[in-house]
Amino acid sequence: MSTIKEYLDQNKDRFLEELKELLRIPSISADPEYKQDMLKTAEVVKSRLLDAGCDTAEVCETPGHPVVYAEKILDKDLPTVLVYGHYDVQPPDPLDLWDSPPFEPVVKKTDIHPEGAIFARGACDDKGQMYMHVKALEYMTQNGELPCNVKFMIEGEEEVGSEHLEWFIKENKDRLQNEVILISDTGMIAKDVPSITTGLRGLSYVEVEVTGANRDLHSGLYGGAVANPLNVLSQMIASLTDENNHITIPGFYDQVEELSEEERQKMAEAPFSLEEYQKKLDINNVHGEKGYSTLERASIRPTLDVNGMWGGYIGEGAKTVLPSKAYAKISMRLVPDQDWKKITELFQKHFESLAPDSVRVKVKPHHGGYPYVTPIDTVGYQAASKAYEKTFGKTPIPQRSGGSIPIVSLFEKELDSKIILMGFGLDTDAIHSPNENFGVWNYLKGIETIPWFYKYFTEMHQQ
Amino acid sequence: MSTIKEYLDQNKDRFLEELKELLRIPSISADPEYKQDMLKTAEVVKSRLLDAGCDTAEVCETPGHPVVYAEKILDKDLPTVLVYGHYDVQPPDPLDLWDSPPFEPVVKKTDIHPEGAIFARGACDDKGQMYMHVKALEYMTQNGELPCNVKFMIEGEEEVGSEHLEWFIKENKDRLQNEVILISDTGMIAKDVPSITTGLRGLSYVEVEVTGANRDLHSGLYGGAVANPLNVLSQMIASLTDENNHITIPGFYDQVEELSEEERQKMAEAPFSLEEYQKKLDINNVHGEKGYSTLERASIRPTLDVNGMWGGYIGEGAKTVLPSKAYAKISMRLVPDQDWKKITELFQKHFESLAPDSVRVKVKPHHGGYPYVTPIDTVGYQAASKAYEKTFGKTPIPQRSGGSIPIVSLFEKELDSKIILMGFGLDTDAIHSPNENFGVWNYLKGIETIPWFYKYFTEMHQQ
Repeated sequence: MSTIKEYLDQNKDRFLEELKELLRIPSISADPEYKQDMLKTAEVVKSRLLDAGCDTAEVCETPGHPVVYAEKILDKDLPTVLVYGHYDVQPPDPLDLWDSPPFEPVVKKTDIHPEGAIFARGACDDKGQMYMHVKALEYMTQNGELPCNVKFMIEGEEEVGSEHLEWFIKENKDRLQNEVILISDTGMIAKDVPSITTGLRGLSYVEVEVTGANRDLHSGLYGGAVANPLNVLSQMIASLTDENNHITIPGFYDQVEELSEEERQKMAEAPFSLEEYQKKLDINNVHGEKGYSTLERASIRPTLDVNGMWGGYIGEGAKTVLPSKAYAKISMRLVPDQDWKKITELFQKHFESLAPDSVRVKVKPHHGGYPYVTPIDTVGYQAASKAYEKTFGKTPIPQRSGGSIPIVSLFEKELDSKIILMGFGLDTDAIHSPNENFGVWNYLKGIETIPWFYKYFTEMHQQ
Repeated sequence: MSTIKEYLDQNKDRFLEELKELLRIPSISADPEYKQDMLKTAEVVKSRLLDAGCDTAEVCETPGHPVVYAEKILDKDLPTVLVYGHYDVQPPDPLDLWDSPPFEPVVKKTDIHPEGAIFARGACDDKGQMYMHVKALEYMTQNGELPCNVKFMIEGEEEVGSEHLEWFIKENKDRLQNEVILISDTGMIAKDVPSITTGLRGLSYVEVEVTGANRDLHSGLYGGAVANPLNVLSQMIASLTDENNHITIPGFYDQVEELSEEERQKMAEAPFSLEEYQKKLDINNVHGEKGYSTLERASIRPTLDVNGMWGGYIGEGAKTVLPSKAYAKISMRLVPDQDWKKITELFQKHFESLAPDSVRVKVKPHHGGYPYVTPIDTVGYQAASKAYEKTFGKTPIPQRSGGSIPIVSLFEKELDSKIILMGFGLDTDAIHSPNENFGVWNYLKGIETIPWFYKYFTEMHQQ
């Protein structure tokens, strides 16, 4: 494994170019218009996996976007690493806030990344992080350093709730058997503070529609006398949280795991500067549930956020319309042991009960996922920790993330193995936002660290 | 005047065709993209006024969209009627709710209009109603029935707050001198219940912007810890009204004229079926300020309506974004003696005070106008009433409308004359909404009634 640094030096320009090529395809899973681009991306991922040394690779059809499956089996008696990632990306809106087009990747130097960062939708989430694994495999196969079997499952629906992955996993249970699942779809605390994600929040995502009159009305002739769906929806949303930013849905907190004082104290020891945090976001104050710190609010506490809201006239200038309809997309991040299906039901029931009889309300559940927490005393975690120590010179910090990878808890349940979340992104990567980027240093560091995980995991597993 | 019905019979097809031609030009004053169409419409109106018998007509430049001015002076000793109307229209959004394209007028039969109605943006508001006056003038000049002087002032900024009309009026005070101002930009109770509008609400229109972090964030990584501008804006809007739908802005009601029990009782006598009203709008219940009837809520009470609201991801599917910004367009309808400039200030001050320190708020005043009430014992009102009696066979009901024509109170102040609001539209005309239309019967009835007003007004004025 001593040759990995040399190999990176010799190949880094090509590694960057290959990633850029992948980033040029707008694989937006949420928008049916990009169906062909989704297929094209899957085909490119498949051929890159074959190039990197997989014995077989396949674009597997599902009722939705396809899953790319590939494998290289050395020996049935050796352990198997299953790599999960996704080739789909978030929609790039709002486009006007991008400094360069989202699907024309460019490398630019930034304060945090003097070595340059790749700017493009999906640069970090998750094409960049997924592709680290492809290149790490290439290194291992080219240099005779692959110590175990490896399987890849790269899906195309992560950004829309992995709707058909459960179906795929159940259909392919035997083929997917493994000793550990390796995922790079999270971040670390800082470039000099490596961390491994040990928890993820769950998710319930719904869309609501409030209807007043059967048509848009003149706000002068009807205003004051007929319900305005935008005013009503604002009131309904406002009532979902109280003055302490506590969520008011009955039963919402019933299953929430309360951390012990000891656990909270340990969390508080993680390096974090509130001043830095506020400065980076250009805010005068943070905002959240009373009684919890910012780190706690963003990881161990559930949330309710409006992700989008619209209705009435939203063009230039003024229009005195009393709209017929108002809409909102609302997501709730969940923590152990909240059941997203139950929470979705509680939301729906409560939201419907909030509506005055002057409007009609529809709640449409989009998707969801269970929260996940992993112990740190497993072989997988220890191998990952050792790999980071090797390449960063520091023991990584176990960290619970506020994000969600809804499918993670399903992996554990269906495939009966532990998941290791080795993320190399940073908070500043602007994933899901305009100007998403991924540090070139982080990309290469990921490729450097992954083979060490394979080595240590195989060694420790065989002991 | 006995020949007006015959003249209508002979010319009604042409009258419809001419109106359709005007409706085909998308004169959307709110959108700078339609500047050329605005100019084109002004030119067409000018040439139609000349065709109808005006001695002079002119497209007068203003710092905004031009005003068309025209006149026919018979004799300086005769009284002068000043006709006001507007050639601009509301934006047609949302386009997908139109059954036929908004700028391709078609005549279709409806339940209310078995004779057909013209469907197009501006059909009623105000191209159709404005053009009735042009055709009434044509009849009078062609048949030697014009009894007095007439002036036309047709503006292009009514739908955006008549921003430059005050300037125009002050610049042209002498030229605009008149004995009465005649406007058809309102409605009547029903085809068989003629009414004359005696009051209009004022207006204050503002746009608000709430900013959280300096960029869109991932709702998993930041959700719960950083203010969500959509949640915050919803809370701020919700707090603008209380549980009785009373507006909570301090000082908002200070200048509101309270009607006497007698006046309210008289209002309650107007023909109105709540059941019909709810059925037409397909609502289970009305919604408004506690202690007032639907008719009162929509005419003599002030309101606060969100006319548009947007932020975050509003496309297909799901996006877990914590948006940086949220926006709303908010209008308040005002009643005597509320001062729109003062109300705008009160709103701004209060709204800014509502914002938590985790967000920043901007309030941008758009435009506004004063409320207006006119007495019914004037020569103008009596002449109009007599004209309706002649053509409808019924005395029209004086009615206060909930709509606003912000410029009306200015006319009274600057030109020192009374305004007569002879509207021929119906509530069901869907002005400002998709599928705006104007009954062919109403259009022709307007052209038939207007010359009688000229006759009676001149006679009564000279007595």
